[in-house]
Amino acid sequence: KKNYRIAVLPGDGIGPEIMQEAVKVLQLVGEREGVTFTCEEGRIGGIAIDTDGTPLPEATVKLAKQADAVLLGAVGGPKWDQNPGHLRPETGLLGIRKELGLFANIRPATMHSSLVEASTLKPEVVSGVDLIVVRELTGGIYFGEKKRYDGPNGEVAEDLCIYNEAEIERIIRVGFEIARKRKKRLVSVDKANVLESSRLWRKVAERVATDYPDVELSHQLVDSCAMQLVRAPKQFDVIVTENMFGDILSDQAAMLTGSIGMLASASLAAGSFGLYEPVHGSAPDIAGKGIANPLATILSVAMMLRLSLDMDEAAAAVENAVWSVLEAGHRTGDIARDPSKAIGTVEMGQLVRDEL
Amino acid sequence: KKNYRIAVLPGDGIGPEIMQEAVKVLQLVGEREGVTFTCEEGRIGGIAIDTDGTPLPEATVKLAKQADAVLLGAVGGPKWDQNPGHLRPETGLLGIRKELGLFANIRPATMHSSLVEASTLKPEVVSGVDLIVVRELTGGIYFGEKKRYDGPNGEVAEDLCIYNEAEIERIIRVGFEIARKRKKRLVSVDKANVLESSRLWRKVAERVATDYPDVELSHQLVDSCAMQLVRAPKQFDVIVTENMFGDILSDQAAMLTGSIGMLASASLAAGSFGLYEPVHGSAPDIAGKGIANPLATILSVAMMLRLSLDMDEAAAAVENAVWSVLEAGHRTGDIARDPSKAIGTVEMGQLVRDEL
Ligand SMILES: CC(C)[C@H](C(=O)O)[C@@H](O)C(=O)O
Ligand SMILES: CC(C)[C@H](C(=O)O)[C@@H](O)C(=O)O
Repeated sequence: KKNYRIAVLPGDGIGPEIMQEAVKVLQLVGEREGVTFTCEEGRIGGIAIDTDGTPLPEATVKLAKQADAVLLGAVGGPKWDQNPGHLRPETGLLGIRKELGLFANIRPATMHSSLVEASTLKPEVVSGVDLIVVRELTGGIYFGEKKRYDGPNGEVAEDLCIYNEAEIERIIRVGFEIARKRKKRLVSVDKANVLESSRLWRKVAERVATDYPDVELSHQLVDSCAMQLVRAPKQFDVIVTENMFGDILSDQAAMLTGSIGMLASASLAAGSFGLYEPVHGSAPDIAGKGIANPLATILSVAMMLRLSLDMDEAAAAVENAVWSVLEAGHRTGDIARDPSKAIGTVEMGQLVRDEL
Repeated sequence: KKNYRIAVLPGDGIGPEIMQEAVKVLQLVGEREGVTFTCEEGRIGGIAIDTDGTPLPEATVKLAKQADAVLLGAVGGPKWDQNPGHLRPETGLLGIRKELGLFANIRPATMHSSLVEASTLKPEVVSGVDLIVVRELTGGIYFGEKKRYDGPNGEVAEDLCIYNEAEIERIIRVGFEIARKRKKRLVSVDKANVLESSRLWRKVAERVATDYPDVELSHQLVDSCAMQLVRAPKQFDVIVTENMFGDILSDQAAMLTGSIGMLASASLAAGSFGLYEPVHGSAPDIAGKGIANPLATILSVAMMLRLSLDMDEAAAAVENAVWSVLEAGHRTGDIARDPSKAIGTVEMGQLVRDEL
């Protein structure tokens, strides 16, 4: 009997509530498929700052490294917002990405037909949107050298955006591999008319493209892409871009669907290892109330089954269960048309498991 | 009798066609107001590459420096797309910004009521949108040091994002001054949870805020702002941000209105000097056909009258003429509901002048 070790990092705010439902779904999948999932909990973010004095304790890194995959809830909250950099929840997130080599962030933005009205865009513009942003996650201006010093015009601050060919090549390849399994159209986004790192990015993309003659590669400038995502989001299949642009564009793309409480993401290392988390944040304002939407976390479990554990069918079963529950009209408050009929976190989790 | 010198840089593609209409409007304003506008033409962009061997000839810089304000059409086109960096049209644009010290880019995104249907967003989400993005234009990663060299993992490319307090302070002040004349709400956008330059940005914004107790300052992370622009654009009045973020967010905001053929922009130096240009590009595909929309360039003339020449009433008269023509149902192809009824560039220009 197969046994997978899953590191579970619930984090802050609504993290623990939604994670509980996701883990229950995972355990049910295990029973059905005859697989054991050994879930071990670790701390990250604000809770780790409070308990361990650091947003990313050594023990958590060790736990994650020994696991087959990591499930993360969400980190952050007003309590830690005024902390210095090394004691902020996000620092734990950036740290675990780097420690685990999670260089490829996969962010699907899919408009599920029964939720079209949740979007602020016109139905004819968003219905059918099904795109994936592949974001480089361990390089660029996020991790380049930072400086702060005094100069003749007051303090000076610097952030270095730096990429080498190997870093660019591996993320571009992820983009091509994903595009190959989909509509075979890859849009590489850069700012090659201004940035040297973008010019190298574009050159590497062109070179790697020769290995994927079946995929059509095109280039878009980041400002133009931000426009096109608003104007005609359906034109996109797979977008690949660097860390900072990916941060902005993936959030913009997510919001096009109108329901970020539904979106999952994967952050992958070389090989099959990955960290899976919902796109939404820790929502401190509704934490502990039992009303948070657990579906993005449950869909993150599905992504984990597919991308790290090679359990495609189980992944599809989880996704289908989620769609069925939605089609039956069940909604948590964030996506409910009629808030008075909204159901809670636990109830939603149970409905998905019933469906499974 | 007053005499203003205006440097007119039509540029490439549709630039010359739309500029012609804008200059005619300007001359009419001159007649009405008893002011002489001496318009002197200069070359920039592709046309300058072809004629002078550089996208920004010395003569153009000199012409602009001697003028009271600059009107620019648009630059670029496929002809020059494969050129090396120093021979690309955009390089002329970046160059003139730096040479003239145009540090403040003012990009209004206003949803005119008769064009609401042009937006891809739902009418209730966009009608009434009236925001301004104030973008820092001569600093940050655009102008920081760039490097390219060989390393153990292939070529390496670097772009340095660098800001000093003085640069941040002057653009933040522009944001506050504009906000003070409007709804007194300023959103400063940064990525302070990751970037050192953003942490300095936020610190300076907080300090400058004490000089503007009547304006409410808030901070938003760039990824969150990209989301909020899609989710609820009406929440924004004035946004102030650094160069790269401003490039992305101002284009995203422009597209929310659905009619970028209508949007003007100003790039201001210290004092009253400024460069005015439409937000849209050179549209090489429709160049020379006489169908381009001249309204964004005409509205750029209005911005020039207001911001550089202290002619507020004349500016309002031009803007009102444009709105009247639109309300009467006249449309160029880009904003026409029924393309068969679209009018041409010259006709649109004439209608605006008739209205004036
Ligand atoms: C919290 C922050 C550091 C992080 C990022 O910018 O990468 C977040 O916005 C994300 O996209 O996961
Ligand atoms: C052409 C390009 C260099 C320029 C920029 O990025 O500033 C353009 O996108 C703009 O916004 O004016």
